[in-house]
Amino acid sequence: MREREPDVTAPAAVAGPVTEIVRVAGAHVPQLLARVEERLAELATGHGPVLAEYAGATIAAGGKRLRPLLVFLAAGGSGDHDSAGLVRAGVAVELIHSATLVHDDVLDAAPLRRGVPTVVAQGGRRAATATGDLLFARAFAELAANDRADEVRILSDASSALAEGELLQRADAWDTTISLPRYLLRCELKTARLFQAACQLGALEAGADAGAVEMLGAFGRRIGLAFQILDDVLDVSGPVARTGKHRGTDLLDGTITLPFILARQRDPRLAAIDPRAISAPLDAERVCDRIEASGALEAARAQALDMVTAAKGHLPAELDDRQRAALTLVANGVVARYA
Amino acid sequence: MREREPDVTAPAAVAGPVTEIVRVAGAHVPQLLARVEERLAELATGHGPVLAEYAGATIAAGGKRLRPLLVFLAAGGSGDHDSAGLVRAGVAVELIHSATLVHDDVLDAAPLRRGVPTVVAQGGRRAATATGDLLFARAFAELAANDRADEVRILSDASSALAEGELLQRADAWDTTISLPRYLLRCELKTARLFQAACQLGALEAGADAGAVEMLGAFGRRIGLAFQILDDVLDVSGPVARTGKHRGTDLLDGTITLPFILARQRDPRLAAIDPRAISAPLDAERVCDRIEASGALEAARAQALDMVTAAKGHLPAELDDRQRAALTLVANGVVARYA
Repeated sequence: MREREPDVTAPAAVAGPVTEIVRVAGAHVPQLLARVEERLAELATGHGPVLAEYAGATIAAGGKRLRPLLVFLAAGGSGDHDSAGLVRAGVAVELIHSATLVHDDVLDAAPLRRGVPTVVAQGGRRAATATGDLLFARAFAELAANDRADEVRILSDASSALAEGELLQRADAWDTTISLPRYLLRCELKTARLFQAACQLGALEAGADAGAVEMLGAFGRRIGLAFQILDDVLDVSGPVARTGKHRGTDLLDGTITLPFILARQRDPRLAAIDPRAISAPLDAERVCDRIEASGALEAARAQALDMVTAAKGHLPAELDDRQRAALTLVANGVVARYA
Repeated sequence: MREREPDVTAPAAVAGPVTEIVRVAGAHVPQLLARVEERLAELATGHGPVLAEYAGATIAAGGKRLRPLLVFLAAGGSGDHDSAGLVRAGVAVELIHSATLVHDDVLDAAPLRRGVPTVVAQGGRRAATATGDLLFARAFAELAANDRADEVRILSDASSALAEGELLQRADAWDTTISLPRYLLRCELKTARLFQAACQLGALEAGADAGAVEMLGAFGRRIGLAFQILDDVLDVSGPVARTGKHRGTDLLDGTITLPFILARQRDPRLAAIDPRAISAPLDAERVCDRIEASGALEAARAQALDMVTAAKGHLPAELDDRQRAALTLVANGVVARYA
C-alpha cells in the first residue's frame, strides 16, 4: 500500500521535528509553507463548488506537507530566491501526492483520510476519479507558470513513476517470490521518485548547478525509500492506535513488503503461508505477530536506517551549515517518525 | 457520457473525410499521423510489460486520431515547421484523450473499447486507474520536450476542464431542470476544450500570431461543442448497429443531454418523466422513441450545425486556401459522421 498518513498521530509525530527544522532552516520556511496552504485552499475553491466540496476538505485537512518542505529545504538560502517559483513547485508536488491519495481511496473505498471523509465516500467513485484527475492537471498548470520545461519533465516523470509503481504492485500482488530488488524498485516508483523530484525542483529553482541538483535528488530518493520501508514496517508493527487501521492491511491486500520478505527467510512456517489464505483481519494480525517474532522488523528498520545514512552522504559538499543541518533533520525525522 | 468512439463503424465513417482532408491538406499530414502512431506504440511498450499489456492494446487499437489531426491542420503549411514539436503535441492530446477513456471505462466497468478488451476488463480497476494516470503523466512529459510553458499550460487547462466536466456531469446527474447554458458548459469542459487545445497547440508550434492562435482555438472549441451535441443525439437515435450499444445509455446513466432537454419542452409527457424511473434498457429505448417523435433530435442537430457554421466563421482571414479547405472539411466531417 502506498505510504499512508496516520490520521490521528502524524501531526504530533512530526510537529517536533518540523519545529526544529524551521528553527534550523530559518523563518522563511514556515512562510513558504503557509503560502502553499493558501494556494492549495485557493485551488480547492477556484474550480467550482463541486471540487471545493470534494477536494477542499481533503486538501485543507492537511498532512505533513513533507514534499513541499523538501522543495524548500533543497532550495536552501533564507528566502532570497524567486519564492513564487518555489511555492509553485511545492504546491505542484503536493497536488500530485494528493491526486494519488484520492485515487488510492477510490480503489480502497476508504471512508476516511486525514480524519475527514474521503472524496469517494462523499461523492462516489466517479467524482473521486475525476477529482484526482483534476488535482493532477492542476499540478502541471501550477508548475508550468515557472516557465521551465526541465521542471515539468521532472514532475511528469515522477508522476509516471507513481502510476508505474501502482501497476507493478498490482502485477506482483500475492507473489511471495518477489525479490528484494523488485520490492525496492516498487518503493522507488511509488514513493521515492516524488521525494527526489521535490528536492530537484527546489534545487533548480534556487539555481543550483547540475551536480548539486542530481545529488539533492539522490538524497530525496534515499529518504523516500526509507520512508516507504518504514511505512511498510508500521503496517506490521502498528500500534493500531497510531495508524488508525488494523495491522496487516498489506497482507490482506496481497502487497508483499520487506518485513514479510525478510520474515519468510527467517521462519519456515511463514514461508509456507500463502497470503491468499489470509482473509480475515485477525488472521493478518496473527501473521504480523509472527513476522515481528522473527526479528524481520528490526532488520527492515536497519535497512531503512542504512538508506538514511546513505541519503546524508549524498548531500553536496557546497551546502552551507544551515541547509545541511535542516536536511539532516528531515532525514532523521523520517526515522524518528517510526521510532 | 463522454464522446464515445463507436467500435464498429467509426473508422469507416471517417475514412472518407480523412482521405479527403489528406488530399486537400497535403501528404505531410498522413506522415505526421503515422509518426503519432509510432510514438504512441513506443510509449505503450516503453513503460514495462504491465503497461504494454494493458494500455498497448487500447492505444494501438486506434481511434480516429481526430485531435492530433486538428493539431496538424491548425499548424497548416506543408510540413515546413518543426515537425517533431507538432508530433509531440499530437501525441500529448491523444494521450490525454486516451487517459480519460481508460478512466471512463473503469467507472463504466466497460468490457470493450475500440473493439478490444478495456484495461479495466483485463487488469481490474486498480490497474486501469493507474494506467490512466500514467497516460496522463506521459502526455505532459511528451509536451514538456517542446520547451514551451504556454503549451504545457494549455494542455493542463484542457485536462482540468475534462475532469471538471466529469464532476459537473456527476453533480447534475438526474437533474431535469438543468438549463441549456449549463448543458453547453458541460460539453465545453468535457469535449470542446481539448479540441480547442489541439488547435491552439498546432497554431503555436507553427508560429502563428496570438490572434490566429486564439481564433483557431475558437474554431476547435465550436467543433468540439458540435461533436459532443451530435454524440448525444446519437445516443438517442442509434442505430444500435452503429453505436454498438443500446440507445438511451445517457438516460440510464442520469446524464441529461440536449435531446432530452429540448424534447421535454415539446412533449409534456416527457416533461413528466423522472429519469430515475428509467431503469431498464427497453424503457430507455421507449423514451428515446418519444424524444425522436418530438422533433428534438432535428432541433439538436440544427444547433450543432449552427456551431459548425460559427466555427468556420472563426477561421482566421490569413489562412491559405489549402489550410482553410482542410479545416472546413474537418468541420463538415464532424457533421457528416452523424448524418
